Amino acid sequence: MPDLQTVVREIAQEMRERTDRGEVASYIPELARVDPSAFGIAVIDADGEVAAGGDSDTPFSIQSISKVFTLTLALGKAGDRLWRRVGREPSGSPFNSIVQLENERGVPRNPFINAGAIAVTDLILSGHQPREALGEILRFMQFLADDSTITIDKAVAASEQRTGFRNAALANYMKSFGILDNPVAYTLGVYFHHCAIAMSCRQLAMAGRFLAYSGRNPSTGLTVVPPERARRINAIMLTCGHYDGSGEFAYRVGLPGKSGVGGGILAVAPGKASIAVWAPGLDASGNSHLGRIALEMLAKRMGWSIFGS
Amino acid sequence: MPDLQTVVREIAQEMRERTDRGEVASYIPELARVDPSAFGIAVIDADGEVAAGGDSDTPFSIQSISKVFTLTLALGKAGDRLWRRVGREPSGSPFNSIVQLENERGVPRNPFINAGAIAVTDLILSGHQPREALGEILRFMQFLADDSTITIDKAVAASEQRTGFRNAALANYMKSFGILDNPVAYTLGVYFHHCAIAMSCRQLAMAGRFLAYSGRNPSTGLTVVPPERARRINAIMLTCGHYDGSGEFAYRVGLPGKSGVGGGILAVAPGKASIAVWAPGLDASGNSHLGRIALEMLAKRMGWSIFGS
Amino acid sequence: MPDLQTVVREIAQEMRERTDRGEVASYIPELARVDPSAFGIAVIDADGEVAAGGDSDTPFSIQSISKVFTLTLALGKAGDRLWRRVGREPSGSPFNSIVQLENERGVPRNPFINAGAIAVTDLILSGHQPREALGEILRFMQFLADDSTITIDKAVAASEQRTGFRNAALANYMKSFGILDNPVAYTLGVYFHHCAIAMSCRQLAMAGRFLAYSGRNPSTGLTVVPPERARRINAIMLTCGHYDGSGEFAYRVGLPGKSGVGGGILAVAPGKASIAVWAPGLDASGNSHLGRIALEMLAKRMGWSIFGS
Amino acid sequence: MPDLQTVVREIAQEMRERTDRGEVASYIPELARVDPSAFGIAVIDADGEVAAGGDSDTPFSIQSISKVFTLTLALGKAGDRLWRRVGREPSGSPFNSIVQLENERGVPRNPFINAGAIAVTDLILSGHQPREALGEILRFMQFLADDSTITIDKAVAASEQRTGFRNAALANYMKSFGILDNPVAYTLGVYFHHCAIAMSCRQLAMAGRFLAYSGRNPSTGLTVVPPERARRINAIMLTCGHYDGSGEFAYRVGLPGKSGVGGGILAVAPGKASIAVWAPGLDASGNSHLGRIALEMLAKRMGWSIFGS
Repeated sequence: MPDLQTVVREIAQEMRERTDRGEVASYIPELARVDPSAFGIAVIDADGEVAAGGDSDTPFSIQSISKVFTLTLALGKAGDRLWRRVGREPSGSPFNSIVQLENERGVPRNPFINAGAIAVTDLILSGHQPREALGEILRFMQFLADDSTITIDKAVAASEQRTGFRNAALANYMKSFGILDNPVAYTLGVYFHHCAIAMSCRQLAMAGRFLAYSGRNPSTGLTVVPPERARRINAIMLTCGHYDGSGEFAYRVGLPGKSGVGGGILAVAPGKASIAVWAPGLDASGNSHLGRIALEMLAKRMGWSIFGS
Repeated sequence: MPDLQTVVREIAQEMRERTDRGEVASYIPELARVDPSAFGIAVIDADGEVAAGGDSDTPFSIQSISKVFTLTLALGKAGDRLWRRVGREPSGSPFNSIVQLENERGVPRNPFINAGAIAVTDLILSGHQPREALGEILRFMQFLADDSTITIDKAVAASEQRTGFRNAALANYMKSFGILDNPVAYTLGVYFHHCAIAMSCRQLAMAGRFLAYSGRNPSTGLTVVPPERARRINAIMLTCGHYDGSGEFAYRVGLPGKSGVGGGILAVAPGKASIAVWAPGLDASGNSHLGRIALEMLAKRMGWSIFGS
Repeated sequence: MPDLQTVVREIAQEMRERTDRGEVASYIPELARVDPSAFGIAVIDADGEVAAGGDSDTPFSIQSISKVFTLTLALGKAGDRLWRRVGREPSGSPFNSIVQLENERGVPRNPFINAGAIAVTDLILSGHQPREALGEILRFMQFLADDSTITIDKAVAASEQRTGFRNAALANYMKSFGILDNPVAYTLGVYFHHCAIAMSCRQLAMAGRFLAYSGRNPSTGLTVVPPERARRINAIMLTCGHYDGSGEFAYRVGLPGKSGVGGGILAVAPGKASIAVWAPGLDASGNSHLGRIALEMLAKRMGWSIFGS
Repeated sequence: MPDLQTVVREIAQEMRERTDRGEVASYIPELARVDPSAFGIAVIDADGEVAAGGDSDTPFSIQSISKVFTLTLALGKAGDRLWRRVGREPSGSPFNSIVQLENERGVPRNPFINAGAIAVTDLILSGHQPREALGEILRFMQFLADDSTITIDKAVAASEQRTGFRNAALANYMKSFGILDNPVAYTLGVYFHHCAIAMSCRQLAMAGRFLAYSGRNPSTGLTVVPPERARRINAIMLTCGHYDGSGEFAYRVGLPGKSGVGGGILAVAPGKASIAVWAPGLDASGNSHLGRIALEMLAKRMGWSIFGS
């Protein structure tokens, strides 16, 4: 088995040197300002050892990666009732597609496309003020990452709120089918803000440990979710975590993962590691270009693919 | 770790007693005659030990499960050139949908929906007579299963050829975009016949061993494909192996698998087992109803999910 | 030639007696309260003679019929520039479909589906306050109908504003593609209010005269639009005026017409008559069931089809 | 009223000089050989007077214009039973789209898109040999045009039969839903051959007279169809006669018309004229570019729009 620290260091070095970096997301104006040459990686193994490289301590906008954690939170509140409002099939469509909603009476295909994540946010919000719901989500992230300094980037949230017409379309569309309980503006407000949580690779890898270790934090021994739920969230990450690039990610990397348009990816090697990478340039499906390549290298060199050695 | 023989025996017993059996496929007239109460299971572990239960030695029509093997064969011939004609993303659509083809200029989403498998068959056929190509596919199955008695059910092939208008539509549609090289009738002829291969669960589990063991047959030591290719085929099975029920299968079972409308499912627990189940009744997505349930039980009781313990 | 007064009286009588009345629109709560047995008809010929029957003086919510008049107004302001934002092809889809928008980068197929009418409203609004734009639309209706008592039913507008999530989805979706210039809430506010204009059949038939008579009001001699524009608006009414029931309306009635979910239809027999009917029950495409039948009878008995005698 | 002979002569002259000619259809190889500079026009008025210009006596492949005549023939045989298999709504899709078929269980939107015309051909074929059905269609054309020299261009039919995979896809797709009664190869054979009928503008305008004159041939006094059926066929031509350019044709020309990819258009000015134009270059929707422009000029100069003077 190769040495993880060495592998991570090498990958960070190789990524620094590559010139194919993809395109930084421009549809949220505030995100477009990020340095396209940034690259970070952090890997935490079962013993809690951290291997990190590059800009692993620079906070970035986690965007859709937050959907993994809101799903976890909502399943804790609503249990399998959640699946009445959201499916769990890959959509075969871009992250912001509305066609599928029209064909399936407003029920989003899965919790990781935008529509599905908005429906999940609406479940978390139920019966609360937006501020309370958002506080709950943020505290959950801080608890999982064991780091109370994690915050929301208000400028990013505001930028998205000003320009997020497509998400407003999705939310209103679902509302017309009764999929959302709360006022559209409330649900969208919470959604835009939890997408604007800023975290470093190190913090994100910390927060993802429960998915790698049967629902438990191996350092503290605390259980976040039962083992079956952790497996199932991983399954949804594998089939739906990269929009219409999910098949490609499974084929190349072979690990459950969730990407965000901020350029981050959280990946899970069950029993072996929780991994976070960050490179702002995106590929055509809206997933981090170098992030995916770095994870492909890591999984290959460490022999971590869930599809066989 | 529970005893595999016991677990398999118990599952076979439980399946026998269940009354929810789904609907036997009726769109291929010949398939509709199958006994809906049949159930078979066979599991082969890394040591070559077989645990079997129920009708594990009754041959059934493997139908779309053959697509795993034609993909393997075509990758051997064409390598990554194959991916110019077929994608590898889940389709989010039923097995016989043509909408996706129109939206993506005739290129099927993945090799496991009908259109994709027809395109793969066309690659195997290239430059040969249908009879030769079919012979090659059949001999490959016999080699993998180490059993030269495996044959094609001519009545099923003829039944499908008489009624397979939707597949003819898919093939002609792709032909209009230049995705198929051979005459449509040739390609469809080979396709209908390889779908009509009849195998028992035991034979099928034998044939699938190379996917569970890094591309090698652990008994003979013969390499079928390189390890990376085995992993990648498993990845495609996981994301695309059950049509628009692929997400559900990953969520509930947590193993790469491929179903056929004959009621069979081939599943792979990497490093641990090659598994075949058969129960003719199908669910709404066209996948074996009890087959899926049996695999869910097996994976859970044996702790085989690829998504964590 | 049969006598128009007699024909209109007979049709009103026959409609009163029919028991197949369709379903009153329920998606706007306020509209659901309308008496389903109401029926009105008014026909104004080239000499300004009015033939009326039934509830021809009862105001009803004109809803989408207003789109004919906002299109006329917007063409006056923007001319052919309007067609950069809206197409003029039948959509083949229901009135509130969003699928077509996704496939065509946010440009609505025609000005008579909801999305198209919202885009037209946005053009009228440009550079003005909602109140001013709405005043302009209302005064245009009053001018055309020669009746300053026409008003907006505020309860209907408020009802639609509270529940019009699907229209909000369409508007936000177009906004995300830059099809709308004004704040979504402004444009929707004007849209909901002009749809809530209440008019009787008599008033509506008066307002539609310019379309029947080459763009002029034959009584006053005033020109509303040039003859070519009147013909073109009629052409769009013929191909797009009844959503996905437009072909059926052309086939059965053979006159340009525009329906509204309030149960009204404005129809035009070029050179011969301006016609308004009202019957609140709708067919499956959202068009007045008895309204269409009454127009079919009228066109047939009077020999008014534009497709031949 | 301008003199028809003069107007037609001027239009032919203007068309000859234009350099924007569109693209000659290339998807049927045999059609691609046509001279792109050809232009013909023929207009027959109520008195049987013919005004012709350009290549008005050169036969060309009428292609989809034949669908008007097969619809007429099939309505004569099957009456309103025909509408169980084919709709009469504009499709909003290209001529060869298959998406709509999947969404509506194999029932084509209207008889003028390819799928619909194939279903109509199947009705004509029912219970006969392809040769007989084709003979019947050809004799019907000869009867309508009063010209027994009209023939089928076998080279075009063969070219289309060899390359018509997309039509084969449509036919097989409908067959899978039970929309076609006859063997797919039979129906397609008749379809490809009636599309390959070759006629001049003069012959085509002659054949179309019954649609302009209430179902009767005004010269012979013979009735082809009842007046209502002529009106209804005209209505379908108006809403569906130019694929996804139907709205545009209605908007600009204002006459019922049917185009073919051979570059011909048959148009009808009810009560006034039967018109045929021919210019091989097509626009983006597959309709004759100069043909449409010529008809727009003709309708405008003669004041023939059905939407008002």
